[in-house]
Amino acid sequence: MKRTVLSAAIVVLSGLALAQTPAADEPIQPIRPAANVNLGMVELGKKLYFDPRLSKSGFISCNSCHNLSMGGTDNIPTSIGDQWQQGPINAPTVLNSSLNLAQFWDGRASDLKEQAGGPIANPGEMAFTHTLAIGVLESIPAYVREFKQVFGKDKIDIDQVTAAIAEFEKTLVTPNSRFDQWLLGKQDALSKTELEGYALFKDSGCVACHNGEAVGGNSFQKMGLVEPYKANMAEGRAAVTGQDADRFNFKVPTLRNVEMTYPYFHDGAANTLTEAVDIMGRLQLGRKFSKEENAKIVAFLKTLTGDQPSFNLPILPPSTDATPRPTPFVK
Amino acid sequence: MKRTVLSAAIVVLSGLALAQTPAADEPIQPIRPAANVNLGMVELGKKLYFDPRLSKSGFISCNSCHNLSMGGTDNIPTSIGDQWQQGPINAPTVLNSSLNLAQFWDGRASDLKEQAGGPIANPGEMAFTHTLAIGVLESIPAYVREFKQVFGKDKIDIDQVTAAIAEFEKTLVTPNSRFDQWLLGKQDALSKTELEGYALFKDSGCVACHNGEAVGGNSFQKMGLVEPYKANMAEGRAAVTGQDADRFNFKVPTLRNVEMTYPYFHDGAANTLTEAVDIMGRLQLGRKFSKEENAKIVAFLKTLTGDQPSFNLPILPPSTDATPRPTPFVK
Repeated sequence: MKRTVLSAAIVVLSGLALAQTPAADEPIQPIRPAANVNLGMVELGKKLYFDPRLSKSGFISCNSCHNLSMGGTDNIPTSIGDQWQQGPINAPTVLNSSLNLAQFWDGRASDLKEQAGGPIANPGEMAFTHTLAIGVLESIPAYVREFKQVFGKDKIDIDQVTAAIAEFEKTLVTPNSRFDQWLLGKQDALSKTELEGYALFKDSGCVACHNGEAVGGNSFQKMGLVEPYKANMAEGRAAVTGQDADRFNFKVPTLRNVEMTYPYFHDGAANTLTEAVDIMGRLQLGRKFSKEENAKIVAFLKTLTGDQPSFNLPILPPSTDATPRPTPFVK
Repeated sequence: MKRTVLSAAIVVLSGLALAQTPAADEPIQPIRPAANVNLGMVELGKKLYFDPRLSKSGFISCNSCHNLSMGGTDNIPTSIGDQWQQGPINAPTVLNSSLNLAQFWDGRASDLKEQAGGPIANPGEMAFTHTLAIGVLESIPAYVREFKQVFGKDKIDIDQVTAAIAEFEKTLVTPNSRFDQWLLGKQDALSKTELEGYALFKDSGCVACHNGEAVGGNSFQKMGLVEPYKANMAEGRAAVTGQDADRFNFKVPTLRNVEMTYPYFHDGAANTLTEAVDIMGRLQLGRKFSKEENAKIVAFLKTLTGDQPSFNLPILPPSTDATPRPTPFVK
């Protein structure tokens, strides 16, 4: 009891201190709006992101599993692929993914451009090929013209497709969360409980991995550091490096917009933030958060929801007589 | 040959005559922008339209099969339902559907509100139940508040859900096509070929069924009037009326935005407008259009593409700890 009272006092003090600390001293930095974007490429990439004709079925687009109405995720434990195949891993949010040190949970793609080509050709996801996808785009004059305008080349190729999608994804940052407002000096942006949650988040060590602009996304860490994580289905980083030491190492996910990106972990096994905070505390920090502490951390985490991407639903140029038709029911 | 030349001359003359005819005398009227809409209900309905949590899987929303990026359709012959089930019929466009005399190909729903409840509870489509869908919505405070604001009631019910979706759908009209500009007096809005196509469309009898504001949608007609349609899979209107005379009767589809709503017919068997015009000519009118005539009619049909709905992609309120989770992989 004494310890609880004492630590609560520390929390309050550190919360008050924080309110006067300039953002530069914090381990988390505010999200900045996208800069240096090529707007023509963004508009083209937005269409491609929403275009299910990049899949074999004509039904699955980037937005199917990284749904920008729902925090850039699909909000199911593992995604649904072609023929309703169950994916092996939780779809990470596309929001703020430009800030990640690498893409995919195991970091097997070095950047957004490299990532974008993966799902199109993955038999368990969009189940298409790059060649077939280019064939579809080349058959649609409005796309041909737009690619030519943006890239200045006569032929569409997969490099242009993934570059355009990546450029659109660069715009999917979410500035202006209440937490960022606080970081930038708006002292009443956070409640006392939320500030106490942030202090706990720092003092208990969460911030060791979840830091920086994206509150994560900048390192690989072992899932199950203190206690093993029993449900580990995926090998993690070891699949990329071949190093046994990297087994169960995953990219630390961003906590930006985490209220929207449930369910949690690489296997989507935690349905709620309460559950995720509890498991992380025990497995990564060897610490059992009290119900009250957990609630405070969750309150803090919910202040990380920023302005969601705001844009008009793109209208896709229609297929022509020459466009190969999707084959959703052919195996 | 003589006959061709003669009819071509008539076409040209009637095309010229048309250019000076006021719209009131035409069998097709311009699409009017939506009027008398409840904007609060529209905004709520837009969210629901895009919300896959109204499906068992958490993956399928109204927009999945009536995709507003793609002419309000899914551009595949028959739709993909829960567990990748193949639907029995082509998904009709939601665009301008408020102008239809009834909803679904067989008209089994009298209006948009009645229609909206169908797919949610259809085991082959969204595979949910109305009760479960309401349970999801009731667990999300942001939805509870928005329903209360719009409907002024303490409880959400399916009538409110379908009313809101229908109200949003009322806004999905597509005015300002080049054809409508011409109807409204802009004489150079259509080319000579397009006007000749329109004259042919009228003179050969297409307009007998495809007329009015939506260029269709206002009557049930037999598919295969002169010659039987061999691929008839669905019973059509007979399934609703129980009358044998209604076998293979279907609601005449709107031709608005028809360039975007491929593939064509209730079974989606015609991939191109050229094919669809040819089959319609032979089966419904007993007339084999020449290649040139066909091309002119297709040119006219492409002038029916109007302004597509323009709105910000809605951001959905996140689920809470109390929200029942979707079960995409449970049969």
